[in-house]
Amino acid sequence: MISFESDYSAGAHPLVLQHIIESNMECLPGYGSDVYCKRAQEKIREACGCPDGEVFFLTGGTQTNAVVIASMLQEYEGVIAARTGHVSIHEAGAIENTGHKVLELDGKDGKLEPEAVEAYLRDFYQDENHEHMVFPGMVYITWPTEYGTLYTRRELEQLAEVCHRFDIPLYLDGARLGYGLMSREADVTLADIADLCDVFYIGGTKVGALCGEAVVFTGKQMPGHFLTLVKRRGALLAKGRLLGVQFDALFTDALYFAISRHAIDMAEALRELFREKGYRFYLESPTNQQFIILDNQKMEELKEQVRFGFWEKFDETHTVVRFVTSWSTAPEDLEKLRELL
Amino acid sequence: MISFESDYSAGAHPLVLQHIIESNMECLPGYGSDVYCKRAQEKIREACGCPDGEVFFLTGGTQTNAVVIASMLQEYEGVIAARTGHVSIHEAGAIENTGHKVLELDGKDGKLEPEAVEAYLRDFYQDENHEHMVFPGMVYITWPTEYGTLYTRRELEQLAEVCHRFDIPLYLDGARLGYGLMSREADVTLADIADLCDVFYIGGTKVGALCGEAVVFTGKQMPGHFLTLVKRRGALLAKGRLLGVQFDALFTDALYFAISRHAIDMAEALRELFREKGYRFYLESPTNQQFIILDNQKMEELKEQVRFGFWEKFDETHTVVRFVTSWSTAPEDLEKLRELL
Amino acid sequence: MISFESDYSAGAHPLVLQHIIESNMECLPGYGSDVYCKRAQEKIREACGCPDGEVFFLTGGTQTNAVVIASMLQEYEGVIAARTGHVSIHEAGAIENTGHKVLELDGKDGKLEPEAVEAYLRDFYQDENHEHMVFPGMVYITWPTEYGTLYTRRELEQLAEVCHRFDIPLYLDGARLGYGLMSREADVTLADIADLCDVFYIGGTKVGALCGEAVVFTGKQMPGHFLTLVKRRGALLAKGRLLGVQFDALFTDALYFAISRHAIDMAEALRELFREKGYRFYLESPTNQQFIILDNQKMEELKEQVRFGFWEKFDETHTVVRFVTSWSTAPEDLEKLRELL
Amino acid sequence: MISFESDYSAGAHPLVLQHIIESNMECLPGYGSDVYCKRAQEKIREACGCPDGEVFFLTGGTQTNAVVIASMLQEYEGVIAARTGHVSIHEAGAIENTGHKVLELDGKDGKLEPEAVEAYLRDFYQDENHEHMVFPGMVYITWPTEYGTLYTRRELEQLAEVCHRFDIPLYLDGARLGYGLMSREADVTLADIADLCDVFYIGGTKVGALCGEAVVFTGKQMPGHFLTLVKRRGALLAKGRLLGVQFDALFTDALYFAISRHAIDMAEALRELFREKGYRFYLESPTNQQFIILDNQKMEELKEQVRFGFWEKFDETHTVVRFVTSWSTAPEDLEKLRELL
Repeated sequence: MISFESDYSAGAHPLVLQHIIESNMECLPGYGSDVYCKRAQEKIREACGCPDGEVFFLTGGTQTNAVVIASMLQEYEGVIAARTGHVSIHEAGAIENTGHKVLELDGKDGKLEPEAVEAYLRDFYQDENHEHMVFPGMVYITWPTEYGTLYTRRELEQLAEVCHRFDIPLYLDGARLGYGLMSREADVTLADIADLCDVFYIGGTKVGALCGEAVVFTGKQMPGHFLTLVKRRGALLAKGRLLGVQFDALFTDALYFAISRHAIDMAEALRELFREKGYRFYLESPTNQQFIILDNQKMEELKEQVRFGFWEKFDETHTVVRFVTSWSTAPEDLEKLRELL
Repeated sequence: MISFESDYSAGAHPLVLQHIIESNMECLPGYGSDVYCKRAQEKIREACGCPDGEVFFLTGGTQTNAVVIASMLQEYEGVIAARTGHVSIHEAGAIENTGHKVLELDGKDGKLEPEAVEAYLRDFYQDENHEHMVFPGMVYITWPTEYGTLYTRRELEQLAEVCHRFDIPLYLDGARLGYGLMSREADVTLADIADLCDVFYIGGTKVGALCGEAVVFTGKQMPGHFLTLVKRRGALLAKGRLLGVQFDALFTDALYFAISRHAIDMAEALRELFREKGYRFYLESPTNQQFIILDNQKMEELKEQVRFGFWEKFDETHTVVRFVTSWSTAPEDLEKLRELL
Repeated sequence: MISFESDYSAGAHPLVLQHIIESNMECLPGYGSDVYCKRAQEKIREACGCPDGEVFFLTGGTQTNAVVIASMLQEYEGVIAARTGHVSIHEAGAIENTGHKVLELDGKDGKLEPEAVEAYLRDFYQDENHEHMVFPGMVYITWPTEYGTLYTRRELEQLAEVCHRFDIPLYLDGARLGYGLMSREADVTLADIADLCDVFYIGGTKVGALCGEAVVFTGKQMPGHFLTLVKRRGALLAKGRLLGVQFDALFTDALYFAISRHAIDMAEALRELFREKGYRFYLESPTNQQFIILDNQKMEELKEQVRFGFWEKFDETHTVVRFVTSWSTAPEDLEKLRELL
Repeated sequence: MISFESDYSAGAHPLVLQHIIESNMECLPGYGSDVYCKRAQEKIREACGCPDGEVFFLTGGTQTNAVVIASMLQEYEGVIAARTGHVSIHEAGAIENTGHKVLELDGKDGKLEPEAVEAYLRDFYQDENHEHMVFPGMVYITWPTEYGTLYTRRELEQLAEVCHRFDIPLYLDGARLGYGLMSREADVTLADIADLCDVFYIGGTKVGALCGEAVVFTGKQMPGHFLTLVKRRGALLAKGRLLGVQFDALFTDALYFAISRHAIDMAEALRELFREKGYRFYLESPTNQQFIILDNQKMEELKEQVRFGFWEKFDETHTVVRFVTSWSTAPEDLEKLRELL
């Protein structure tokens, strides 16, 4: 059985695991105050070209979104997101659990359109009754999106400009950030993202870590007493080292980028494979998630020997499925898949 | 520098780490549905003598308390706890963040007194205005307590009986459960605890894991859609395996108990050491946390070579400090300490 | 200046006020336990043909929606509503403030379509990942809607049937209930509504009271300790009599219906007036809110002598405005308006 | 039957009711933007000697406490209150429902001791682990307290000074403010309170209104978008006039003070009555709540003809009861009581 089911199926990248092993018996202070956390924070600041940035490690994506969004919104504010955004549908109401509304806008292939965001903000303030409504207090985007797509630099600039004009932060959910940055179609760098966003996170769980996401506040604007806010949401690890050690490994010798590039190479090869064999794509994704339209009979056949994800029904006889590569995808897996297609 | 600062200073117990390493490259389903989680759940049920129990893995203690308490209380209820309880003072308001009040009662050496709990419950329902008050909906205890003390079997039975009579659950926070069970003064077993409590958790973070706590609902009464409740609080790990693998190791060949016993042996030796040297104890603790009254000058001297915790000022010239042993405390550490006392 | 701005511009209906005056100096027990509350509850149960119903008085619509919805949802559930519903956009996030998501569906003229609700519920449970999503736990509708429209009996039956099949309650927000019941197009009675809905409220604030809404749980299923839930949300009046006295008056000699009918008569006349004069309607509303498309120049002229509401821009030279009648609209106001059109 | 049960047993003071009646048929804008609200705000600012103050009307005390406290605290903060404070025990957890902890301190006769507050704040910041604790973000006091007692000017100054030093607001719950100000023992004026507190409320419900409390932010520091915060908590009345009209009446010709003084005169007479007859007092209260120790047999006798409140058991044969006077207490009620004692 080969697996293209997700990018969180395997454990940690071997070099990440190695670092955990080597540091295991050291006695270190708790709650993220250890030397590995500090070292990782410094390396991330450097990789972001963001010497004033503040970095905080959290355990998973939904937790990170809830903690960051709740900590940056005023009580009367909500967060703008695409209707297909992770915070909108796949976090079991974690944002609403913090008391804030997700203000859902229609998007395209998982992306918010800067014009639509601008129109929403403009209309909001022009509405005579807006004091009876939830104030838009942040823009949330995913990069890559849930559909594997990427905002271009131009689009990010436009979103940043709109946010800046309305004085609200732009927050980028980078659960798969590495896979976006290493995409051949990406025209932005990590430093660009740090430059354009007020806050974002560098996903670890899906890019080689056992768990862990690194939140970057890009300009000394981390909310006051953030550690307490994190603790209060049950998100503070006693052995914070677990996160620091892993990110220290991921940002040593650009490992994060190298393993992301590998996943992209595998995705490109996978895409080529399906294309060669005449399969149709549901949409064009330049990252590690590929959406393919399978004949239902073929899908059932494949399921016997390959793990992949169901996405949605396409028509009576076809289904959209998702194939995902990751740092752990082996070229041999692709060879086996070639034989099955 | 030797460390008696806490039981979460070192990484994972070597056998736990070994299990992580061995399973690392396996591709497994996410969110706790993997075979290691299932295996660990089964082993825990067995260790608890509780075949109908339901087991769920979470990442840390504060998170576990918030998720469990919020999921079991009705909206109009709060949780009774000792004023010194972890949920009362050291979780940054994580329980209140879920909308529930901690109903704090005076205790003794960290323990709630069954009579006081009973009186509180009785008085509450006799109060004509109790509909304007927070209903007591659960009793929360720590075992061992924050002071290292233990409820006796008799006390646990009394608490369970009171809870049963008022039809509210008894919840035991076992962040250091192993160190309690292996104490020479403990007169209860893990099976007794499962028998007396409606829900409790077996602490991993402080007993050999990198992170992780195992919640046990003792009688098929896990709240409905618990996974969704966990997700919604940002507490669901994508790689749930990380927790399952560790608890699988901890509950193989009774490792959890063996390493806890080691910590207790070390604590007994440490206690003996201080006693021999004529130090006074702040209170008698039969577990891995020892509270010693140090002359301030001696404290400053010791600090140069030993890490330990500040607890509270005792008088103008003395301070209460906390020494903690764990599965990772080495006999040589005690030897070095002996020389310094 | 004549006013068609809203149905909450004037104070209380004279008979309601009279009842307040007459009972003013009586010493009564607090928090809704007085004789007027009990009497009003009894009269409402009778008017609803619902002897087992439980009635509770609250102060305003947003408060009522938040209290009712939060008290009936499980923690992991959200409430289905039309994207244009009051809870979706005009309550400043009051539902999210209770931790629950509003699951917004597209509707038509303010109404949810039963087929769309059914499809949403079916798709939800068929989605393999639905445990990572907010469970739909209630259907919320407004009757009349924010657009003045009415669900037919058939539509209400269909919605009730869908809710029943999926075992979730149907909740009807009747802020303007009287104006719906007295509409010439309404094919349901108050008893029908009590029969089809699990819970609904009879709006007082917009139908002759100074403040006050009467929540009706139609079948002995009021959430446990509801008074405490209300208190906890700051929604319990010490002088609960204020609400009881008003609803006692409104449900004596069918006053509620009589004054609602008056408003409908006025709305019919107003509609006729605009129609005669050749104005276009934005949509057909059979209740007390009328939406008219005005030429911008005419709108500015009218504004000098009439108060009405801005609804939305129609095109470059036209605007949709809202004219509202109520129990307090006088025939002379219509005469004056006729001269101005 | 005569009643000394509470100060919210009767309806509105006749002059307040008169103002409601006279303004009833006026068409006014909603949500507190009407001329009566503005007029009342202006009069209150003047009575407070506080031209920069901002005034907002809410419906009841618990609602006011929840809205004010939640709007002024940072997410990581809680509010310090006496263990006997209204927010601590008699609001069904309304503060915790907003996510904030009530940090309860022991007090004396319902009052916080400035030294205790100072010690708490000092100790908090000296605690090495305070980032794992709830930050004290406000001090809440009641004046008069739940026991009818009053802080002296000196005590208020001390509390204000401590708050100022630690940069947190002092909030005074004045549910019975008038009865405090008119007490013969009060050595502060309304202007003094406005001067010493950052925010407070002038209780209307218990001092002559049907409902309503006037929050005063004393120095242009009302939280941003306060109306939206109020709306979001379901606390915004559509017919905000109801509150404005009543406070306009209460602050015309010093009615608020006159009717409060009447209640105090009645309380003094009541106190004298009990004293004469040799009854013991539970504590010395200089305001409209009097706590008397009754022999149980006498208590049962009295109950037949007088309504009063049960407070607590004193000993096996005695009970503490509460007698309350108000603006509506008639001298004849005292005469009747005299005969019964």
